[in-house]
Amino acid sequence: MLVVKVGGSKGIDYDAFVDDLASYKDFVLIHGGSHELNELSTRLGRPPRFVTSISGQTSRYTDLETLELFNMIYAGKMNKMLVEKFQQKGINAVGLSGLDGRLAEGRQKEALKIVEDGKKKILRGDHSGTIERINVQLLHLLLENGYTPVLTPPAISFEGTAINIDGDRFAAQVAVALGAETLIILSNVPGLLRDIEDPASLVQKISRDEVELSMNQFAKGRMKKKLMGAGEALAGGVRRVVLGSATGPSPVTRALQGEGTVIE
Amino acid sequence: MLVVKVGGSKGIDYDAFVDDLASYKDFVLIHGGSHELNELSTRLGRPPRFVTSISGQTSRYTDLETLELFNMIYAGKMNKMLVEKFQQKGINAVGLSGLDGRLAEGRQKEALKIVEDGKKKILRGDHSGTIERINVQLLHLLLENGYTPVLTPPAISFEGTAINIDGDRFAAQVAVALGAETLIILSNVPGLLRDIEDPASLVQKISRDEVELSMNQFAKGRMKKKLMGAGEALAGGVRRVVLGSATGPSPVTRALQGEGTVIE
Repeated sequence: MLVVKVGGSKGIDYDAFVDDLASYKDFVLIHGGSHELNELSTRLGRPPRFVTSISGQTSRYTDLETLELFNMIYAGKMNKMLVEKFQQKGINAVGLSGLDGRLAEGRQKEALKIVEDGKKKILRGDHSGTIERINVQLLHLLLENGYTPVLTPPAISFEGTAINIDGDRFAAQVAVALGAETLIILSNVPGLLRDIEDPASLVQKISRDEVELSMNQFAKGRMKKKLMGAGEALAGGVRRVVLGSATGPSPVTRALQGEGTVIE
Repeated sequence: MLVVKVGGSKGIDYDAFVDDLASYKDFVLIHGGSHELNELSTRLGRPPRFVTSISGQTSRYTDLETLELFNMIYAGKMNKMLVEKFQQKGINAVGLSGLDGRLAEGRQKEALKIVEDGKKKILRGDHSGTIERINVQLLHLLLENGYTPVLTPPAISFEGTAINIDGDRFAAQVAVALGAETLIILSNVPGLLRDIEDPASLVQKISRDEVELSMNQFAKGRMKKKLMGAGEALAGGVRRVVLGSATGPSPVTRALQGEGTVIE
């Protein structure tokens, strides 16, 4: 069983990605959509707002109106685009969000502690949180009957409301829940870079013990969450995590061959 | 087993609807989203285009860009809004489009023969069609495992592409496939009206044999499709179809009590 996360930053070649992944049959896909969401929000006169927590994590401020646009892009446009592409390749894909069948259940954050203009602030009205439980029975039900799950945020809170959750960590939890051997996390960068401006500074291999150190030393922005996801996957029994690029041909195959940052 | 179609015109009270339907446990829901799609299309500078076929049917011209917005509204915003509301009522809803698991498979129309400005024209690039097969195994798989399907257009063509299909006829085919006793079709009007301007002109009962006559005599616009759906459901073994309103409280219960147009 292979668990793959793709997107949703700019520059991802979804056709090449689907072409490649479709040849692997036994997989579960988790996807993103942040670039498309930024574009739609901006077109509708509501540019995205990103906030930085006091621990240095950057995240999208997700009020109820943003959540509606979020569903439109993630569960609507991106999810059905991918399901359609897989169907054309003979993969019987079923697209689900974390809300459906309470597939990804978690806790909504009470309030965000952020840093803005150098000042600490409490920000309310943010509908985001952390997954605590994957409905692995629903995944098995689909897999055992020949369906391939194509999963997307949001998740669902224990109270039954939609919450924005990180897609990389969602993928990590799915990989753990399914007992996957390998988790591949594809984005628009070649992997973890020592210097974000220099693709040649790719870190090719890190051990499980080095994940936290790497997070603090090199990782910026979204890469921090990818490493956090990688760490959670390995801690949960996944043997190997590869951070690779989905901007060219055969991105899954290349990641499986070790192209990118391999963490094991 | 109860099959219900709701929406997607203006004025539907989704909270009251979900409150009521959630008390029935054993059901499958099909929903629309046309009003919201018109609004989004217009906001994005692409007002909807409706065309009239030479047989007098009105439908949305669905080019590829419209289809993308269609997925955003139907499979994204509306579907996940309903799934979330049902989850909050303790119904373990799973939202699926007709693409997912090839739930609703059909044939794409080759070209639309339309009448515009009094002239007959051939219109190409329309991604719409008619459902020919419901994947009833997938519905049973979900129902037997405690999940409640919440279904939305689009469907999938035999070639694996998304096609816009009529939601009322989708509901009829699901009702037939599941051997449902009753199909309820709720919208923002009280049922079939002899005079569309006069709610007191409601047709309270029509027999199966009168469906086609009523379609030609009274029905305008979307009501034609509802009657067509009703006719298809009855022909397929459904015992009773009720066309009712979802603009007030307890719309499902009222329809089951015979409020609206009862066809049997």
